[in-house]
This record gives sequence, structure tokens and C-alpha cells, in this order.
Amino acid sequence: MKKAVIITIGSELLKGIILDRNSKYLCDQLKKLGYDVVKTVSVGDDIDSIVREVRRAIEEADLVVTSGGLGPTKDDKTREGIAVALNKKLIMDHDLKSRIEKRVREFYSGKIPGNISKQAEVIEGAEVLENTVGSAPGQLVNVENKAVLILPGPPRELIPMFEAVKEKLRTENAFYERTMSFYGIPEAKLEEELKDILYSQKDVEIATMVDHVHGVKLRLTTDFEKKEQLDGMMEKIMGRLGRYVYGFDDETMEESVFKLLKKENKKIAFAESCTGGLISSHLVNVPGSSEVFVGAVVAYSNDLKERILGVSRETLMKYGAVSEKCVREMSEGLHRLTKADLCLSVSGIAGPTGGTPEKPVGTVFLDLYDGKSHYTKREFFKGNRNVIRLKTSVNALNMVREYLIGFGE
Amino acid sequence: MKKAVIITIGSELLKGIILDRNSKYLCDQLKKLGYDVVKTVSVGDDIDSIVREVRRAIEEADLVVTSGGLGPTKDDKTREGIAVALNKKLIMDHDLKSRIEKRVREFYSGKIPGNISKQAEVIEGAEVLENTVGSAPGQLVNVENKAVLILPGPPRELIPMFEAVKEKLRTENAFYERTMSFYGIPEAKLEEELKDILYSQKDVEIATMVDHVHGVKLRLTTDFEKKEQLDGMMEKIMGRLGRYVYGFDDETMEESVFKLLKKENKKIAFAESCTGGLISSHLVNVPGSSEVFVGAVVAYSNDLKERILGVSRETLMKYGAVSEKCVREMSEGLHRLTKADLCLSVSGIAGPTGGTPEKPVGTVFLDLYDGKSHYTKREFFKGNRNVIRLKTSVNALNMVREYLIGFGE
Repeated sequence: MKKAVIITIGSELLKGIILDRNSKYLCDQLKKLGYDVVKTVSVGDDIDSIVREVRRAIEEADLVVTSGGLGPTKDDKTREGIAVALNKKLIMDHDLKSRIEKRVREFYSGKIPGNISKQAEVIEGAEVLENTVGSAPGQLVNVENKAVLILPGPPRELIPMFEAVKEKLRTENAFYERTMSFYGIPEAKLEEELKDILYSQKDVEIATMVDHVHGVKLRLTTDFEKKEQLDGMMEKIMGRLGRYVYGFDDETMEESVFKLLKKENKKIAFAESCTGGLISSHLVNVPGSSEVFVGAVVAYSNDLKERILGVSRETLMKYGAVSEKCVREMSEGLHRLTKADLCLSVSGIAGPTGGTPEKPVGTVFLDLYDGKSHYTKREFFKGNRNVIRLKTSVNALNMVREYLIGFGE
Repeated sequence: MKKAVIITIGSELLKGIILDRNSKYLCDQLKKLGYDVVKTVSVGDDIDSIVREVRRAIEEADLVVTSGGLGPTKDDKTREGIAVALNKKLIMDHDLKSRIEKRVREFYSGKIPGNISKQAEVIEGAEVLENTVGSAPGQLVNVENKAVLILPGPPRELIPMFEAVKEKLRTENAFYERTMSFYGIPEAKLEEELKDILYSQKDVEIATMVDHVHGVKLRLTTDFEKKEQLDGMMEKIMGRLGRYVYGFDDETMEESVFKLLKKENKKIAFAESCTGGLISSHLVNVPGSSEVFVGAVVAYSNDLKERILGVSRETLMKYGAVSEKCVREMSEGLHRLTKADLCLSVSGIAGPTGGTPEKPVGTVFLDLYDGKSHYTKREFFKGNRNVIRLKTSVNALNMVREYLIGFGE
């Protein structure tokens, strides 16, 4: 298996000002391309450190990826440091220089800041990698059987550039990995239901990860050439338990719900009690959410439930705010107010106090109302106050998902 | 100046599963203690890599800090690796072993998982650092004029342990640094108003940082022994411009507002239009916020403003939803509904469309109402949709802060 070392360069990293997110991204990507990442290093904008670490990395690995230090200012020393480490010259690429200057001139309306032409210095024999987002191009240098990939520091430049070059780096050990996120099915049941599919192909490695808030994740991994086999398995899994699957890879519950609402052209409103705005803020975090989100009422107190949502005093007195009757009335009131296609209400006891033997801390009622029918449930969540609120939010969004996919029909 | 190297250890770091936050934390802390952090390295749970990197680090620095790899399982090799690198023995500390077993037994109600006693192996001559949160103790080893600090990986264990040991690491170059966050005053005016104070003491270094959403941060840095001088300057600054200061060090606007609301024993409610729940979700992010937060109405549409908040149709027709009159009626409606001590409303044009020559994109009206008086303003924010919404949220919370400190009285 080929080895890789990542070197992130920048004095701000060592002063604790910037959190290095590039290393994690690159580790994940390189792993999938078949590399064993043996080390990541961060050094400052210091030529000696860069030279030393690049030399060591070239000795220890087949591929070295650097990020950062490609700017036009004096403190950016990556190009120079790598050239020294590889005993190569830095050559001014005049075509590249004109292209960079042109782009920068457009960006800064005429003025070119600093010594921008420095960014057109290319290591002897290197392939130039265009930067479509910023001014600093990347470089890919092949030395004997090894390679040095030089990328800029800002993630919004580094990520697309890595995406563009990654096929060139793929090894024979590259693998294909997909994750499926399930909600509403326990790990043991999931494995039981899927065992014939999951263990039918020994080339596909299976891992399950349980998260007490977000459900069960199933990770499928195989060699890159066996991609189709894995995709076929996923299709079978979807055919059997697809109703529990809310996302693939990094997709979140709120993204999944947003997509479904958009697809079905439905708008939603929330009436939140114990969650205190958490459901709304999850959905609002998704770009474009305003297309599907009408609004919300965060009604902590009984008083607000009565006055804004029109929950009857009788219901509150007789059944309490944490009751099936109350959440249904909340939804109905919300529907009167908002006319949203879907009205979702939650009321529960997040603790640490307020529990009773009948309704212990963690008791939550949820109701989804479409103007005609109610879909109400009672849940018992374990955990501290914040965990209960988080679990409630994810569970509530999952109710919307289930409704939209026609779960249970 | 003394040099430091940080080594974070754990195979998950190299697989892109875990984001390394410890390095940033340690870099920031070590910088303040007077170290020049020359490198951070991450390696897997691999004995050869650990030995090699620790040996290099000891050569390159005066202090080496490691995190991770102290667990009880077979793959945890940090203790062993460091012992080999330093040519020292690992000695079982039987007292420590009993203490660890006792704590673990309490935690797991009797059962002791794995080979927990491994965690009681101490490097010859090392000082044991108690772990009050988890089971793995840390160690501090002095070798000649150098030191190796061994800490566990989970931040919630590492941070308190580092806090407890850090005074032992302080160098003569340690410095003292404080940050003050200002809102509502431009950088140039701030410097103009404070120049006599800021430049009165050449021992205190001043840096200003401008963030287009959160205002101006002023960072004051001095030698650790000159702490009092710096504190004195801060007092003078507070005396002059304290009304603009919403936080110290990492304190956020919402934390500051939460503290003030709690201190004044006041409850707040929000009526949000363009922010879509962002103000509520900021406040709800502060632990304990339910003590001061009554609830919110997220009223995106005019219809909801009318029906929930009782904004008059006339106002909406004649002045529009983005108007002084509308936000005032929103606050009054919210006050009728919630009876909160403070009712804050916002309505604006976040874009990208919807602007007019009179009310361009970025126009936002904000109103704070205490049941008697209104405090209303119009702002023009620049930026994309999300920036405008973020700026509105911070600005809105700052209005609450200003009200509570009696700004302008």
C-alpha cells in the first residue's frame, strides 16, 4: 500500500489562531484513494522547517501533499521550500503570470496587490494546477516514483483543486465507501433484517456505527473496481429498509427533510415547546430552507400555548401541556395561523426537573398534522436536557420524512 | 525563547474520522506560556512512528506535548512509545492502579473493562497527573533540560489536565493576553477615542481585528509580569467605551445578553421575520437560556404577521412589512401574546431579490419594546443573504444589551 504524508504550512496554525481542517479532509480523501496516511505535520512559514519536513516526508512516503504558504507575500515560502527540498529550480512561467494577473486584475478592479507574479513561479518539471477560486495555482511534481502535490491553504480553494486532480493519484488500493444513515430501527434489528444482503459478498466490508441521537450508520467499503457490487447491495438494502434511510454519506436529517419538502412542494411550520426553536434552527441551517419553511411558534409556557396556538385551558388543566391532546391542539392552532401544508408540534419534559412517575423526564409528545389527519406519538428519550432536546428535534424531523415518503401506507 | 512540539496520536486522526482540535488548543495555550510552537505532528497508534517522532521532537524542542493513545486497549501505544524514545522503563504504579480501578469500578458499576491496569504504567521518574474526568492519567517527564507532557486525547480530559499543570510549564517569555469585543463603534473611531490609553504603555502590544458581523476586537498583549498594567488599561477603556464592549476573550454576544438578562431578571421574546429563527437559535445555544427566554414567533409571511402578531393590514399595505410601523406593531403583538419584559422584532430584506430604490436589499428594521417604550432603528446591512441575516441577529441582540446597560441614558 502506498504511503502518504500531509504537511500543512502556516504560522497561524501554530499560534492556535486557525483550526486545521485540511488535514482531516485530505486524510479522508487519500484513504479512499488507497493511501496509508502515516503522518500529518503542521509547520510555520519558515523555510528551514519546510525543507526539513518535506525531505523527511519524501523519504517516508510515496505521496506528499502540502497545503498553504502559496500567497504572494514575503512570508509565503512553500514553493521555495519544496524546490530546495527536491533540489529543483523555481522557474517563472510567463503565460501563467499573465493569466494570474488577468484574473486578479478583474477581481480587484485593476489594482494588483503585492508581488502577485511570485505565484507564477513553478517548480522545474511540475504540472500547474489551475485555481478557479483564488489566485495561487497548485502544482504536482513527480520525482522518481514519488509525487508532491502542492495545494493552497483556504479550504474553498484546496477542495475543488484536490477534486480536480485526485484521479491522477488513485492507487490500485483505492476503495469505494458509502454510508447510509438509518433512523427508527435498532442496530440489532437492522443487522437481522439485512444479514442475507450484508454478508452475501465478502468483498464488501460492513461497519455499523450507532449514534444515540442520529440513529444507526451503515458503512460499506470495497475495492474501487467493485463499486457496482456495493451499489447493487445498497439498492437491495433500500428496497428492503429504504423507509428507514434518511441520508447517504454526510447527508443530515434536515437536509433530507428539506429535499423531500421541496420535491413534494410542501411548506411546513413548527410549534415548539421543549425544543425551544431547535427544530426550526436545524431546518433553517439548510441553504434555501425559506422555500419550504413558513415559520414557527416557540411556545415555552402554557400561557403562550393558549394564547398563540389556541390550546384550550381545559386540555392544559386536565391532560397537561405534555399530552397527546395538547400537541394535537397545538398543531391545529398552528395550522389555523399559518395554513402550512404540514404543522409539526412537540411538547415534552426535557428535565432535569418536572418529571412525574406517569410522565418521567424524557417524555415527549409529537404531532404532525396536515390539515386533515394527525400523526401523533409519544416517545421516552434518555439523556440530559440537551440530549433530550436534540433527540426530540431529530425525531420530529424524521416524522416529517416518514410522512412525505408515505411510511406505513 | 523555548520551543515546543505537539504530537497528537491516534489512527482515527489519519483516517479523516476525527478532527484534531487539541493541536489548536495546545498551540494557543503554549504560545501564551511563552513557547514558540515549531511543529505539530499527528501519527497513528504505531509504536515506530511514535518513537521516531518523539525522538525528533525532543531534539527540536524544549517541551514536547503529546495527546492520545493512553487508553487501556492494545492499540494504545503512547506510554510505551515515549518510554522507548526516552530510553526509560515503564513501571507499574500499584497505588495508581488501585485508584484507577476504584474510579472505573464506580463508573461501570462494578465491571472493569479491558486491561485497565495498563493505564497505571508510569515512565520512570515521571510525575503522575490525575485525570478527574476519565481513567487515563497523564504524565510529566523531565529529561535533562527538556520536558515531555503526556495527555489523554479526549478534549474534555485533556483541557482540565492541561489547565492543572500549565503553571509548571510557564517560561520567562510567558505573556498575558486579553481580548475585548466591541459592537457599534467603527475601528477608526475606537482608535481615535482610545489613543491616549492604548499608546500610553509601550509594554502593552495592541492589535485590532475587524469582523464584519461581530464588530471590532481589541487584543492587548503584554509580558506576564505586567499583567496589572494591562488590566489597568482595560479598566480605563471600559470607563470610556465600556458601553460598546459586549465581551471579553471568547465571550459571544448571546452569552453577554444572556448574562445581563439573568442579572436584571428579565425575560425576552422574539418576533423574527427575515432572520427566520436565527436570533432565537443563537440565544438558545447558551446553556440555561430557558431561564430568560419566553419564546418566539417566526413570522416569515405578512399573513402570519397579521394573524399571529396582530399587525394591522393597513400598516402592511401602506408602509409594508419592512417598516418602522410594522416592527413596532410586531413587538406590541408579541407583548400582548407573551407578556415578556422585552419584546424584540425584526423585519428586513435579506435578498437576493425584493429590494427597491427606497428600501434596498439589506434594509432591516428592528424594534425593542418593554411594554412602555419602543426603541426602533433602521439599518442597512451589506452582504449576501446569510450575512445580512447574521448581521441582523447580532445587531438585534446588541440592542437588548444596550437597553439592559442603560446605553444612551
